[in-house]
Amino acid sequence: MKLYTYFRSSAAYRVRIALALKGIAAELAPVHLVNGGGEQFSAAYSEKNPQHLVPLLEHGDLLLPQSLAIIEYLDETHPQPPLLPADARGRARVRALSQVIACDIHPIDNLRVLKYLTDKLGVSPEQKTDWYRHWVALGLEALERQVAHAPETGLYCHGDQPTMADCCLVPQLYNARRFDCDLSPYPTLTAIAARCEALPAFVSALPENQPDA
Amino acid sequence: MKLYTYFRSSAAYRVRIALALKGIAAELAPVHLVNGGGEQFSAAYSEKNPQHLVPLLEHGDLLLPQSLAIIEYLDETHPQPPLLPADARGRARVRALSQVIACDIHPIDNLRVLKYLTDKLGVSPEQKTDWYRHWVALGLEALERQVAHAPETGLYCHGDQPTMADCCLVPQLYNARRFDCDLSPYPTLTAIAARCEALPAFVSALPENQPDA
Repeated sequence: MKLYTYFRSSAAYRVRIALALKGIAAELAPVHLVNGGGEQFSAAYSEKNPQHLVPLLEHGDLLLPQSLAIIEYLDETHPQPPLLPADARGRARVRALSQVIACDIHPIDNLRVLKYLTDKLGVSPEQKTDWYRHWVALGLEALERQVAHAPETGLYCHGDQPTMADCCLVPQLYNARRFDCDLSPYPTLTAIAARCEALPAFVSALPENQPDA
Repeated sequence: MKLYTYFRSSAAYRVRIALALKGIAAELAPVHLVNGGGEQFSAAYSEKNPQHLVPLLEHGDLLLPQSLAIIEYLDETHPQPPLLPADARGRARVRALSQVIACDIHPIDNLRVLKYLTDKLGVSPEQKTDWYRHWVALGLEALERQVAHAPETGLYCHGDQPTMADCCLVPQLYNARRFDCDLSPYPTLTAIAARCEALPAFVSALPENQPDA
């Protein structure tokens, strides 16, 4: 099993956590993303992933893009420890929490979008940072409310074992800190992330602990 | 079962298709989205969905946001006809195709993002349209390549029965037509969508066939 990754990619970071939690020793193939002309546009990589994004999982002749699809695939093929709950309601909740981040925060703040803002629309560095923080704040505010008082929330986003939702939360908060976002309005989320960050699987997946860092 | 929906919402449209394919007669509760001050910001709705987005599924005391999480929940609780394949590889492929749209096209082109561009960054109507078309083209180009020559593709995105991927594809193409995007580079996708659009479930879910249209 081979994971095409980039140390700073928040979406690849999610999958690295999932692999580590499951104890799967995947080969890491770094793809050096550069604003405008990185390895993600090479002919070889474009053939594998026409979206020019990481992560991409290669498993035999399967080429699988999209971090959440990869995590669910890992969960189905390597069930222990589970990253989704056993019940339909629980699975639905974990998927929804994950998608708040993976659909409604991260893609709007991704490298290629920020590049479009500066290169094509000529926004200032300050406006770019405001944009970034705006979507983070909107998403995390909703997520904090969804997690804070829910009986399903435990030590982690759902219960007392890490799930796919935690695989999404930790990289998003890591990313938000890089942009100096104020995380004080999200005490439940930051407490959960702190618990995650103390686990070896989350440590090994950190951007600074990657071979391409 | 109650679906909070808005006739023009592409994400709600996905779920309406899924409900119709499964023959589930859910109550439709329209939420009138308005740029800046619609019903999605009412206290009653914000209590149910702090993200202020549609769709939202209410099922007993379950309040479930996020269209893909809802579709998977419907598929698990109402298995026939299945909207995800029976095998892990097939499920992974359908999820990945769905997420290309639901993560990497739609959220960047969503109402609230377009509003930010015009209201806060002062972009012109022309620049806004260019932005919209840019992300649609990037995503559909990748999707066309992923679907066009894959042995798993059949009459629909995956095999010969509609799946979650088709529930995402049809609303995205509908939306793209509203912005006069050139769809001629995507003959496989448009052929699949045409087959879908001939099915009664897809017709009933059309924006113009909604009570709030």
